[in-house]
Amino acid sequence: MTPAVSALRTVLDGRWAHVREDTREQMGQHALSADPDFTTEQYRAWTLEALKVLTASGRPNTGFDPSVGGEGDVGGVVTSFAMLAYGDLSLLVKAGVQWGLFGGAVQVLGTSRHHETYLRKIIDGELLGCFAMTETGHGSDVQHLHTTATYDPSSQEFVIDTPHPGARKDYIGNAARDGRMAVVFAQLMTRGEKHGVHAFLVPLRDGNGQPMPGVEITDDGRKAGLNGVDNGRLAFDSVRVPRENLLNHFADVAEDGTYSSSIENETARFFTMLGTLVRGRISVAGGAGAAAQKALTLAIRYGEQRRQFADPTTGEEIAVLDYLAHQQKLLPALATSYALQFTQDDLVARMHEIQAPGKPPAGAREQRMLEQSAAGIKAIATWHATHTIQTCREACGGAGYLSENQLPALKADTDVFTTFEGDNTVLLQLLAKELLSDYGRTIKVGNPLKIAPLLGRQLASIGAERTGLASALRRLPGLSLDLTDRRRRQALLETRRDDTLATAIRNLAPALRRSNDEFTVFNSSQDLLLTAARAHVDALVEESFRQAIERTTDQDVATLLRRVYDLHVLSVIDRERAWYLETGRLTATESRRIRPLVNELCAELRPHARLLVDAFGIPEPWLACPMLDGAAPLPATQETAEVAAAG
Amino acid sequence: MTPAVSALRTVLDGRWAHVREDTREQMGQHALSADPDFTTEQYRAWTLEALKVLTASGRPNTGFDPSVGGEGDVGGVVTSFAMLAYGDLSLLVKAGVQWGLFGGAVQVLGTSRHHETYLRKIIDGELLGCFAMTETGHGSDVQHLHTTATYDPSSQEFVIDTPHPGARKDYIGNAARDGRMAVVFAQLMTRGEKHGVHAFLVPLRDGNGQPMPGVEITDDGRKAGLNGVDNGRLAFDSVRVPRENLLNHFADVAEDGTYSSSIENETARFFTMLGTLVRGRISVAGGAGAAAQKALTLAIRYGEQRRQFADPTTGEEIAVLDYLAHQQKLLPALATSYALQFTQDDLVARMHEIQAPGKPPAGAREQRMLEQSAAGIKAIATWHATHTIQTCREACGGAGYLSENQLPALKADTDVFTTFEGDNTVLLQLLAKELLSDYGRTIKVGNPLKIAPLLGRQLASIGAERTGLASALRRLPGLSLDLTDRRRRQALLETRRDDTLATAIRNLAPALRRSNDEFTVFNSSQDLLLTAARAHVDALVEESFRQAIERTTDQDVATLLRRVYDLHVLSVIDRERAWYLETGRLTATESRRIRPLVNELCAELRPHARLLVDAFGIPEPWLACPMLDGAAPLPATQETAEVAAAG
Repeated sequence: MTPAVSALRTVLDGRWAHVREDTREQMGQHALSADPDFTTEQYRAWTLEALKVLTASGRPNTGFDPSVGGEGDVGGVVTSFAMLAYGDLSLLVKAGVQWGLFGGAVQVLGTSRHHETYLRKIIDGELLGCFAMTETGHGSDVQHLHTTATYDPSSQEFVIDTPHPGARKDYIGNAARDGRMAVVFAQLMTRGEKHGVHAFLVPLRDGNGQPMPGVEITDDGRKAGLNGVDNGRLAFDSVRVPRENLLNHFADVAEDGTYSSSIENETARFFTMLGTLVRGRISVAGGAGAAAQKALTLAIRYGEQRRQFADPTTGEEIAVLDYLAHQQKLLPALATSYALQFTQDDLVARMHEIQAPGKPPAGAREQRMLEQSAAGIKAIATWHATHTIQTCREACGGAGYLSENQLPALKADTDVFTTFEGDNTVLLQLLAKELLSDYGRTIKVGNPLKIAPLLGRQLASIGAERTGLASALRRLPGLSLDLTDRRRRQALLETRRDDTLATAIRNLAPALRRSNDEFTVFNSSQDLLLTAARAHVDALVEESFRQAIERTTDQDVATLLRRVYDLHVLSVIDRERAWYLETGRLTATESRRIRPLVNELCAELRPHARLLVDAFGIPEPWLACPMLDGAAPLPATQETAEVAAAG
Repeated sequence: MTPAVSALRTVLDGRWAHVREDTREQMGQHALSADPDFTTEQYRAWTLEALKVLTASGRPNTGFDPSVGGEGDVGGVVTSFAMLAYGDLSLLVKAGVQWGLFGGAVQVLGTSRHHETYLRKIIDGELLGCFAMTETGHGSDVQHLHTTATYDPSSQEFVIDTPHPGARKDYIGNAARDGRMAVVFAQLMTRGEKHGVHAFLVPLRDGNGQPMPGVEITDDGRKAGLNGVDNGRLAFDSVRVPRENLLNHFADVAEDGTYSSSIENETARFFTMLGTLVRGRISVAGGAGAAAQKALTLAIRYGEQRRQFADPTTGEEIAVLDYLAHQQKLLPALATSYALQFTQDDLVARMHEIQAPGKPPAGAREQRMLEQSAAGIKAIATWHATHTIQTCREACGGAGYLSENQLPALKADTDVFTTFEGDNTVLLQLLAKELLSDYGRTIKVGNPLKIAPLLGRQLASIGAERTGLASALRRLPGLSLDLTDRRRRQALLETRRDDTLATAIRNLAPALRRSNDEFTVFNSSQDLLLTAARAHVDALVEESFRQAIERTTDQDVATLLRRVYDLHVLSVIDRERAWYLETGRLTATESRRIRPLVNELCAELRPHARLLVDAFGIPEPWLACPMLDGAAPLPATQETAEVAAAG
């Protein structure tokens, strides 16, 4: 590793640098790649073996409470987990299901009786489990899922039922083959009353792996990717579990069926419960970020060595990364990957401060802000991964289409990241509505969703559609016409964040005054809401990147990072320049200057492209592929000894 | 089929409606889907069997010359071929390799001696073959590939050699398993002189399937998709073939080694030869179009039946296609799919007029224009497919990730369409340079690539970066401010086509005056060239769609199509509105009006969405999937009887 790579990596590694280094060291010794020609059954078997190696490494301890022998390093485990995306994504997801979702739910939704009985077995992989929330008919709308858990005081049991096929639990990882128990989310009914969604521990299979009575398990079969994970469907027919199997951190049912909860309002309780599960969403964002980094590393290395068409002057063939169009495909995406890594680290640190053992209890506002950021960053990071990996595949041409060169698995495996742990469009809409609510709270008026008319009047004076603002902005102290001025660009992102929200409110206000049809009103403003959410996240990402550079003491690294930052921010402004022009934030002359600036930055960063991807520190054995060395494909192996002891 | 579907389908089916109907009828009786859990070997075996069923149907005759028993229906075969994308894309590609590329090359590059000896066997599937053009080190730059064919007058043979590993033929369909012969592109050397790339018939395997002496065949292995096609690599070590194996339509070598050609200039000869192969590129565009149509059909049907979140007013759950954001994902893409279908049909008809037997020989200009259009439309149609299928997968959520619901195969199989038959970026750049050349020819000045400085001066007065043009445009007779005016929108697309080309020339001109470094000059204008090419295709597509509506006699159909046309054209203007604002073609007020217009059109077309996809006429058995009927997954079958007799 050159000193430049080392210095840059130190900055990029951030607060959990030691975890990253440990993980790299453990991983770096192993080739971790499944045979692309595995059948589904072979790949599932391979992944289960890999999970055992992971268990043996002791890493799953990291995130759990010290009370059950864990290290309580919440930030560390999420950081380390995401790095599995450098290796095999089925292993990452299976590990995430087992320890993040299943184990995590037992920890945060359960109480000591569950912790003592199950957590050690979960950590040690003796009890493999599922997180059974999503239903065939209810993916995004979890609050209204249809599975029921009806309390029977005569036997002191809950009776779990799937009332119709649309209420089957679906896409459940670990269900089709390996899981013995599930955390099942169901509508709790007791004494004839419905109390909303709660979580229950439900045994799925007996010691011989046979389904328990009343449990019907079917297989989701082959998927676009992640075929090492055994996703399946669960249906329950009067399945009885003891009263104690309710994960009762937030609510409980007494022996006689009396319901009690520390949170009175059903909706508030539901969202509080869900909020504790924020770690899953953050982990997905991290995994997506790492997968995009790997794709960029492969494509940039290939782009440096691949030559095509001769220079008419010199007769020498030109490296494809020297073509402007190729740089435009890869380098802005690389800059955004840097931005997202710093953003992700900030997010992980915020979560750590709230969730790690021994931290003071988080305020509702802090928790809510964390959930908002997690929703928005998950959406943006996973779409970034989908687009970037697609671009990298195309940038590697035919070689990028061969499984031996790893891009096909990266693309196929991460494709569902935009869907699971919350559909991206739904998440951004959720974020937008939260932003409206926050605004409502700021100005201290009643039910936030109902105050849009009021907000509309208040905000009328700062509405977005003013023209001539570009010149006004330039008259602000310290801001110049020149788009190379970082303060100007920062202000552009912040303005967009504020004004797109104001525009959404201004559009909702008169419509809600005119109509009681809330669906139609919100639906007709849906694109404005999504725009506002996106702009909010863009500003958040800019802030994280900017602050990371401010913290950087190595001046050479800081200088390089500033150019990467410039490319990222200019790319965002470039993408949204129609909005800036429409709202008068940029003049036509300024707008036309953006693309040439992006091109100049691409040319400037081109010589540093290899350094920038090497700094991600992806273990070299995990990057090995024939297109990068002309060697024969690595022989695939099913031996578990080859599986990384990582996590 | 309702009368509305029938009437719309008639218009959409166009000139080759009878071929489409025949193909549907043959196909409609069969379920044509490979088991998603096939190993590579199983899938290849399945595809070969499917190919035999296709052979037995007699369809491959359609495109070949009557002299060998074919029907000479060039347009018909391309139309029918593309419809295989509704079924299994591996079969489509394997058929394309066998009859389109291999058989097609023998027909257009060979002469009667090759036709008589080989074409019947090729049509009947007795002789399976490869099209060995691409090399590991030379994908896009075919003119400079490194395989050599050196004439040896002593034995009257050509000696084929692979001088280094980078000159291996790579990604060659039919090579790894089934092909017995290949059309090999190699640099022809005779009497110590090099004459550029020519095509040779080279036997690959003997009757027992063993590689011929000197032929090394390796397997490309698993790919992202298309795993029913046996792609492989070919290397030649002093492989000798008779002199007569040169496909000698454009050039020949006499017994004594004398070279002769009807086209003196080596580069001109190369591009003439390549030009005859334009059918492959057009077929890929057609296949991509059909795949996107199938994805949209699946996603729109799902979006109509999938319900999520209750309407707060009525309490009823809302179909996801009723959400504006969902409509924005699918309906503009559907409108563009309509536009591309009409464009494709025009392209096929132009090709038919040039290539079908009995047609008068095409002029150089006609041929060149066809190649330009094919390059541009291939790029735009395949990117459209990649983006649209991705969007459809996401729009179907978790269900879209399951193989049983067909979207994963559509995505993975078509992913390489943006790469093969010409990398899209390279194709658009080629188109742009051709457009520059055409401009040069129009004003009758020497070498087109060298006249940019002159063009620059000539074009200075019509350069793109004028402001205030929006108001000027509105003063043109018949044009109004209102973006609902179709003439205005058509003018906007045409203006963009003309002005982006002028801008590219204006930027190249002074740079070429200043510098002799042609690479640097063109490279720094690469994005302008790509923009001009894209704008050219956008205008072409608009024209095809507009003319198709003008031809439509059914007034109800015409009315509906006009709204689809409106949505397509407005989406293009929306995508490019930053450019229109920067160049003063749209005012900020007008630009802000576009998105609401798009939204209104989405709402207006929403009730017709099902009709619009049903009109594609995809055979119902090929659309069957559990997410659309809640039924159990179709049992996968390996039986060849299930394979469609289609083509």
